[in-house]
Formats: sequence, C-alpha cells, structure tokens
Amino acid sequence: ITTEIENRSDELKSLNPVDLYRPVEYALNIGGKRLRPVLLLLSYNLFSDDIKAALPTAVAIEVFHNFTLLHDDIMDKAEVRRNQPTVHKHFNENSAILSGDAMAFLSYQFLLEKKSENLVEIIQLFSKTAIEVCEGQQYDMDFENRLDVTEPEYLNMIRLKTAVLLACSLKAGALLAGATTEVANQLYAYGINLGLAFQLQDDLLDSFGDQKTFGKKIGGDILSNKKTYLIIKALENSSDDLKYNLLNWINKKDFVAEEKIEAVKNIYTQLNIKTLTQQKIDVYFQKAAAILQNIEVSENKKQQLIVLSHQILKRDS
Amino acid sequence: ITTEIENRSDELKSLNPVDLYRPVEYALNIGGKRLRPVLLLLSYNLFSDDIKAALPTAVAIEVFHNFTLLHDDIMDKAEVRRNQPTVHKHFNENSAILSGDAMAFLSYQFLLEKKSENLVEIIQLFSKTAIEVCEGQQYDMDFENRLDVTEPEYLNMIRLKTAVLLACSLKAGALLAGATTEVANQLYAYGINLGLAFQLQDDLLDSFGDQKTFGKKIGGDILSNKKTYLIIKALENSSDDLKYNLLNWINKKDFVAEEKIEAVKNIYTQLNIKTLTQQKIDVYFQKAAAILQNIEVSENKKQQLIVLSHQILKRDS
Repeated sequence: ITTEIENRSDELKSLNPVDLYRPVEYALNIGGKRLRPVLLLLSYNLFSDDIKAALPTAVAIEVFHNFTLLHDDIMDKAEVRRNQPTVHKHFNENSAILSGDAMAFLSYQFLLEKKSENLVEIIQLFSKTAIEVCEGQQYDMDFENRLDVTEPEYLNMIRLKTAVLLACSLKAGALLAGATTEVANQLYAYGINLGLAFQLQDDLLDSFGDQKTFGKKIGGDILSNKKTYLIIKALENSSDDLKYNLLNWINKKDFVAEEKIEAVKNIYTQLNIKTLTQQKIDVYFQKAAAILQNIEVSENKKQQLIVLSHQILKRDS
Repeated sequence: ITTEIENRSDELKSLNPVDLYRPVEYALNIGGKRLRPVLLLLSYNLFSDDIKAALPTAVAIEVFHNFTLLHDDIMDKAEVRRNQPTVHKHFNENSAILSGDAMAFLSYQFLLEKKSENLVEIIQLFSKTAIEVCEGQQYDMDFENRLDVTEPEYLNMIRLKTAVLLACSLKAGALLAGATTEVANQLYAYGINLGLAFQLQDDLLDSFGDQKTFGKKIGGDILSNKKTYLIIKALENSSDDLKYNLLNWINKKDFVAEEKIEAVKNIYTQLNIKTLTQQKIDVYFQKAAAILQNIEVSENKKQQLIVLSHQILKRDS
C-alpha cells in the first residue's frame, strides 16, 4: 500500500497548477503508519483475495486522513509532523487550506475509481464519517477553553475524531469485498474500540513516549493544555493540593517549557495516571478482541488483524 | 429553493457541536442569488416536472458553493460578503476552515439523499468539478504575483473557478431527470459559456457597478491588483505612457484607496475597457444562446433558462 500511495502521489505531482498539487504530494510522501489503508485491506482480505481491486479505496482513506492532518495542523498551529515541517509551515497557510480541500475531493475520486455494487453505500459511509471527524475536531477545539471536560465527553470526542475513521476503513473494506451488512457492522464496532484504544495510546505517548521514535515533541499536549485522558483523569482524581498545583501550571502564562512538562508528568505519576490510562486502553482492546472473535471468517485470516492490533498497542510512535 | 435552503440550514443549526454548525447556518442564510441551484432546477425541469425530487441535489450545489466562499474569503482576506461580515470575521478563522470542511461533506450528504440511476455519475461529475474549482482558485492566487497573465490563461482560470460549477449544476439537473448523456453534455457546454459571461460581468461590476446593489465595495479588485479581464486587457492594449502609469499604480505601496480606484478606472475608460469587456460578455452569451437553441426540448421550457440568462447579464449585483 505504501508503494501504491507513493505512485499515486507521484502522478499527482505532475498535475497543474503545481502550487496546488505539490503540497498534496508533500503531505502524502511524508510517511506515516498507513494504518487506515492497512486496516481496509486486511478487512477486505477477510472476504476476498483480490487485494489489488481494493487499492484505490485504501488510497482514498489515506488521502482523506492526510487532508484532516493538513487542516488540523493549521487550526492547532502545529509546526512539526512526523519530524518534518507541517504543510502550512513548509508552504503557507493558503496552500494548506486549498490543497487540503483538493485532497478531500481527490479522496472521493479514488473512492469512485473502483466500481462495486456497494459503491453508493461506501460513499455514504465515507461522507458520514467525514462529517463526524469534523465534529470531533470541533469538540477537541471547544475543550481547549474548558477545565470541566468529563470522561464521557472526552470519549465521545475521540470516537468522532479518531475511532470512526478506523471503523469506516474496516467497514468499507468489508463492503467492497461483498461482505454482508451484519459482518461489516461487526468490523465497524471492532474499529471503534480499536480506535479508542489507539487514541488513548496516542495521548499516553505524547506525555510518556520517546522523543526519537515519536516524531513529535514529547509533552506537546501538556504545553498546550490539551484535554487528554491523562489530564481529565488527573483533574478528576487529584486531592485539593495537587489539583491546585495542576491548575496553577495550566493557568501559568510564563513558564519554561521543560519545567511545565516535568511538573505535570510528576503530578501524573503521583496520581498513577499512566497505569489508569493503560488499563482503559486494555478495556477497549479486550472489547475489540471479543468482537473480532465473534466474526465468522477463517481464524487464519483474522490472525493478521490480531497481529496488527497488537502492534498498535505496543507501538512507540 | 430559497425556502428549501433556509429550512435545511435551520435543521443544521440545531445540531451539535453548535460551534461547527452555527457558521454553516450563518453562511447559508446570508442570502445570495441562489443561481446554481436555480440553474439545476430549471435544467431538471426541462425533462421532468417533479421538481421536489431535485431539491436535495440543488441544495447540495449551493452548500458546496458556500463552502468555497468560506475558504476563498479566508485566503483572500475578504471581510465583507453580501454586505455582511465574512464567516472568518464574524466567527474566526478556525471556524471558517472547519465549518467549511463540514459543508464540503454535507454537500455529498445532500447529493446522496436522492437515489437515482445516475447517482454515481452525478457524484463523479460533482467531485471532478470540485477539484477543478480548487484548481481555479489556485490559478487565481498564482496570478496575484504576476503581471504577464495572458487572456487565455485568464479565461482558463475563470472557466475552472466559476464556469464549471454552473455547467455542473445544469448537467446534474439533466442527469437527475434522466436526460441522455448527449443532451446533458450540451447543457454543460451551455453552462460553461454562460459561466464565462457571468464572471466577466462580475469583473465589470467590481469596477463599474453600483455600491448599493453590488454588496461588496466597488473597486476591491483594483485595490488588490486582482488579475481581472479588465486589467489584463488594459495592460495588453495600453501605450507605453499609459502602461507606465498603470504599472505605477499597481506597484504603489502607499496610496489613498479612492484615488487609486479613480485613477485606474480613468485608465480603463481611456482604453475603452468597459466596452471591450461587454463585447466579450456578448460573445459568450451568444455562444450559450446558440447551444441552448440546439437542445431538443420544448421551447416553452427553454424560455425560463433564456429569461434567467438575460437576468444574469443585466444584473447589477
């Protein structure tokens, strides 16, 4: 799939106007785990071996995902992604807006490439998912200005912002391969739980990951007071003293970045937040595993999805 | 159609998160000519009287058009549209980016509402058009930094930025009503020519329109050195003296807005640019009329399209 994405983005690079398509190619070739297209292909492969037929749809999902990154990075003022300058930094903000828009529509073009009986259903799923991802990003931004975000609110936000696209990838793969709606929906539910675990892991890595492999600066979420599972649980579980201390760091305007990161991580450690988060990850992971267990396809083929989901939860980037 | 758009945007207003959907509702209720959905409905009506069935598709086109306005206004730093603050001014830039994105996907949701035999073909047409509109906006931005934009380059830019969406509206209406591909393509060609005339008229109004009815500040294109048909022809047709004078105004960093507008309009008048532009508008209008003439539907039904296209060219806003 990586080769396919590179080939497709090389094709785009030669299109005019170059200032529209160069940022697209830059964004697609910057790398990444390609998790969503891989999920789509593995799901497709549960029901059909003709993997090649699913490549355009897999590319569509990755192009859409990268569109969201382009626009999110503008909104979050993020300067680095995957150890490279973000598109709005490497080019400019207008490029990131417009090339992002083009990618949103290009993702439909890729979807439309593979004619299948279920094409309209796949486009419907995809559009619904895209709107949900926008809703998730809005909630995420809304939460920036709030200190009273609850755990259910947070979980709903990451469901929309992250999990539905993983779920959509899995369901689209199944539909494309001609699976029944029932089985496709089971894979969707599997994807939601996997996605929640994935995002919780992401939150954990942002504070407790390894700078070298993570690709972003460790502690970025802490510096920007991003409402992660970690901080929500810390605010929920802390005694008055510790809470005062934490709120103090959150409200501080002038601080040394490293000091704030150390201090907040220290509070997390005192509150056992790392373990709490790992337990929550495990809950969703077990739910996902149980759903997958129940899906009636050959154990042999399921194995690849199981291996991948283990990789996701042991990842360090 | 106006009522339908208002009803639909009122429905959206009540959705969560409110900060995502309020700007959508604001953008859709700010008014406008609703030209694209009207074209779609008139085209549909050439082949079918069941207008109600075409409303969701007509709304889709208008939602898409307003999405492009949201993002273009950020990129162009435009503060006023239809005599109201633009979305990124009334809310903020992040809202305009994200609510715009949501509108792009909502437009697909509206398209998908009406199941028809030609739905996949309509989605394909729509996606291709959307990408072309992005290309047109990129060319428009590229031209800002250039003084050597040629007439063919300019015409290609407005074809992409403006004409293809009018053409898409007409073709989508025809396809939805079950017209043959041949007739749908004739309506597309009609739309291209109508769209070119429409954009040339827009250029003309921006410099020579009436502030009260135009809805934007007269002379905005002149102040921002936008590469319109007027300035391209003026640079092409001017003697050395006049060209020096014009380039002088273009390059000036400090100036009184009203003085620059007056001076450039004065140069346009000396070069007969208004008449030249009107002649060009007429060429495309005649081409459009000739294509419409050849389409084999009842003259009675064609009449509505003819009336509308006359209105477009006599409009003052």
